[in-house]
Order: sequence, then structure tokens, then C-alpha cells
Amino acid sequence: MKKENRLVYFVSESTAITASSLGTSLLSQFPDIEFIHHRKPFINTMKKAAAFADELLAETLKSGIKPLVFATMTDKEINTLLAASSCHYYELFSRYIHEIGNDLGIKPTSISGASHGLISPSSYDKRMESINYALLHDDAMSMKNINKADVILLGVSRSGKTPTCLYLALQFGLRAANYPLTEDDFLKDDIPDVLKENRDKLIGLTIHPKRLAEIREKRRAGSKYASLANCRIEINHALEFFNRYGLHVFDTSSSSIEELSTLIIQAMR
Amino acid sequence: MKKENRLVYFVSESTAITASSLGTSLLSQFPDIEFIHHRKPFINTMKKAAAFADELLAETLKSGIKPLVFATMTDKEINTLLAASSCHYYELFSRYIHEIGNDLGIKPTSISGASHGLISPSSYDKRMESINYALLHDDAMSMKNINKADVILLGVSRSGKTPTCLYLALQFGLRAANYPLTEDDFLKDDIPDVLKENRDKLIGLTIHPKRLAEIREKRRAGSKYASLANCRIEINHALEFFNRYGLHVFDTSSSSIEELSTLIIQAMR
Repeated sequence: MKKENRLVYFVSESTAITASSLGTSLLSQFPDIEFIHHRKPFINTMKKAAAFADELLAETLKSGIKPLVFATMTDKEINTLLAASSCHYYELFSRYIHEIGNDLGIKPTSISGASHGLISPSSYDKRMESINYALLHDDAMSMKNINKADVILLGVSRSGKTPTCLYLALQFGLRAANYPLTEDDFLKDDIPDVLKENRDKLIGLTIHPKRLAEIREKRRAGSKYASLANCRIEINHALEFFNRYGLHVFDTSSSSIEELSTLIIQAMR
Repeated sequence: MKKENRLVYFVSESTAITASSLGTSLLSQFPDIEFIHHRKPFINTMKKAAAFADELLAETLKSGIKPLVFATMTDKEINTLLAASSCHYYELFSRYIHEIGNDLGIKPTSISGASHGLISPSSYDKRMESINYALLHDDAMSMKNINKADVILLGVSRSGKTPTCLYLALQFGLRAANYPLTEDDFLKDDIPDVLKENRDKLIGLTIHPKRLAEIREKRRAGSKYASLANCRIEINHALEFFNRYGLHVFDTSSSSIEELSTLIIQAMR
């Protein structure tokens, strides 16, 4: 049976990333419908809002079904216009802002204050520095300054270290390094001394052998590197190291990058 | 005058990234208060919820002020427990879920469906591939496969190309390459042919000379590279290129990475 389609728009005066994030989360509760997502950022003038309202009307006339609109909107005039337009309108901001104001006993400012729009040079610098750090310390490219890491991820090749490090840097401003466990380490049956000295920062990443073989197969088809047998051996040896040094271990095959990063931050405390 | 402090918690059964994102955005409307943020992910059992409720009570007794709690929570039992605990409770999910269900004419599932928890191997692969692409094509390290890019960012050294590329890859699964404009290009007074062949994918990044000098100064203090005069010359020459080839240009000194990425995606359409 073909799923029913519904148009969905995520709207805000800024990036609409927050509206998109909460809206997507809400819509995941309705798995029987296929939602077609559109992000509409920077709807920050009445003119842009009116053009968007026209688009909503045109879509409704075309399909006979009103689109859904999720918005985080601080401008009252734009809000009123969109709420009256041809859509199911869910505004995720104003309902709460007055409640919070009442609870705090102060009035909210009326400036659009989407969090993604606020940049302070100091937090930008920290983020940049963390990204540079992650890039320099990716895949053990440089072990220099490894002592300055907030966290060091250990795992076999293609176990998900790099994207997780980059996410930790970009989203949380953490200095995340990673070290790939390779045949050298397995032959020595130990990890480098510099890692042992930073044992409290080490986190182990593991992955299902079948999933790893799949990922590696795309990289080097038919290689020993990608074979299921070799993937099994490497992962088992890595798990042995993690166990020996008492590391927190997370499985990247069953978690998103966001979940992994959150689990890692929890483990770091 | 010292700002008033308030404790804030962001809570969910999954990563609490969505709750944190919307909550932070809402709180930015109250700039006179300093909010101390805590993320509480994976509150997915009554036991964890009860322990968290105890923590809220202890904090209230200590300071005499109730913390704020922003939650995206699908579990009704946990919701009821937290709503009755010692805090101002803002639940960002259930209010909407019934409204959406009514509008769609179907019931929501009761499974926790935070968007960050859902991973499909295909979208994971796309994300990984995009990240690898961004890393390989960072700073013109490889011009191979540059034709496969979705977007190519141009700008002088330290103008914000790398973090923006990584964000585009991580958050939107786009193949983002970047090319640093250097003295070579300025002496030739032109950009490489391979870029001209991909003119429709080019986006120019610029930055205020003072901000650039500041950033470069941290890298190589006292160098010609970091001097304000040199930064001015490089930026002017880069802007001349952008103008010559009719590129969209965005200023990284006044926008966050999220805003820049959103602007770039809009310009790509």
C-alpha cells in the first residue's frame, strides 16, 4: 500500500533548524504518513511571509490538502498572517514564551533571538579551535598535543570515530582526538604508551562485524580488510583492549552520531 | 549589576538535543537572566525520572528557587512525574502531538520517536560519505572528483570554509568542497580552470579584515600573513573574483555556521 503524502514546512525568521528538529521529532509519531519536508528559513518580513502564504494556498488548491507548517516565530504580525493562511499551523514559540515570562516574573524581549543567530567571537573561536584540533588529531595523524584532548576515541578502521569527533567539536566545542586500532597494535597486543597515560580520556567504539564488513566492502571490495572474518577478529581484539583498560564502550552500529556524542559526554563526567 | 542566575535542565528519553535547541532559543528572549544549562539525556525509565525529580527538589531547597525544565517526552507516566516535581515544567511535545493527530485524523504511535534516535543505514552511509568527501576536499587537498561536489566554497585562508563544509556534510549530507584563494591565484589574477568549469557550484565567503587579522594573529603572531594591510588586500582581491564570476557571497564574520549553511543551501537552489 502506498503511503499517504503530506507536505510539511519548517519556518522561522532565522535558520528554521530548531523548528525542523522539533517538527521532525513530532512527525516521527505518525509513521503511516510520508511527510515531504521543506525548510523555509529567513521568513523575516511581511512580504516574504505573504509570498509563503501564497505558496501554501497554491499547494492546497493543487492537492486539495492543507500542508502542515511548524514555526518558531517571534514576530506577532507574521505569526498572525501565517496562522490565518491555508495550512495547519503549529507555532512552537509564543505558547511558551508568555508562560516562561510569567514564571520568571519578567517580560520577554521582542527581538528575534533564535539561538543559531547569536554569535559571540569567543564561542566561535572555541568552536574553530576544536574543529582544527579534531582535524589535526584525526586518525592519529598527529599525536602531538594529545594530552590536551578532552576525549580520545579508540576503535578499528571505519568504526565511526571521525564523524563522532567532528560532531563533538562542531556541536559541543570539545577537543576530540581519535586513534585507529590497527594490525600494529594487535601484533604488539597493546596500545601506545601515550594513550595509556591518558587512560581517563579514552572511550572505546565498537560496531557489529557485519555492518563493518558492509562499510569496508564499499571502500575496498573483495579485500581481506573488508572480509567478515577479519572484521570479527579486529573487533574482538579491540574489545579485549577496551576491557583490559576498563573503558566505556559504545556501539556505533545501533546509535546515531547525536546519540553517540551524548553518550560520550555523559561518560566523560 | 550581577545577573540573576537560574538553573535550566533539558530533558528527554533520547539525546535531549531538540529540547535543548528550542529551550535555548526561548530563553534567549530573557537576556537579563543568566541561565545555567544542564542537558539530561536518556531519562527513559521511571527510576531515572524519580532520581532526576529528587535532584530538582534538592536544588530548589538549596537555592530557594525552582529550576526550569524543558522536555520532549513521549512517555506519559514520566511526564506526569516530572510535571509534578519541583520545577517549572515546559513539555514541548504532548501539547502538539494531539493537535497534529486531530488535524491528520490519525492517532500517534506511543513509541518514543525522537528524531536523533532513528538511524537508517542508507542515511548514515550518505552522511559518512559526505564527511569523507569534505575531509578529502578540504583546503584543496584533492581536486580529484571536485566535479562531484554539490557545492564548492571559495575564500581566503581562515575565512571559515572548513567548519562550514563540515557542517554542511554532517547536518545536511552535502558533498561540500572548498578552495583557499592564495597568493598564487592573486598573482595569476584568476581562479583555476576546474573551478570555472564548476561555476554554478561556487559560493564566495568573505570576512571583515579586522576579524580576519584577529584570527590569523592567533595562528602566526606578528606575521605579514596576519597583518591588517595584507588581510585587506587579500579580501579585496577575493571579492573581485567573486564579482567577476557572479558568485553569491556570504560574510562569515556576522553569521553563525548554522546561518551560513542555511544561506548556502538557499543559494544552491
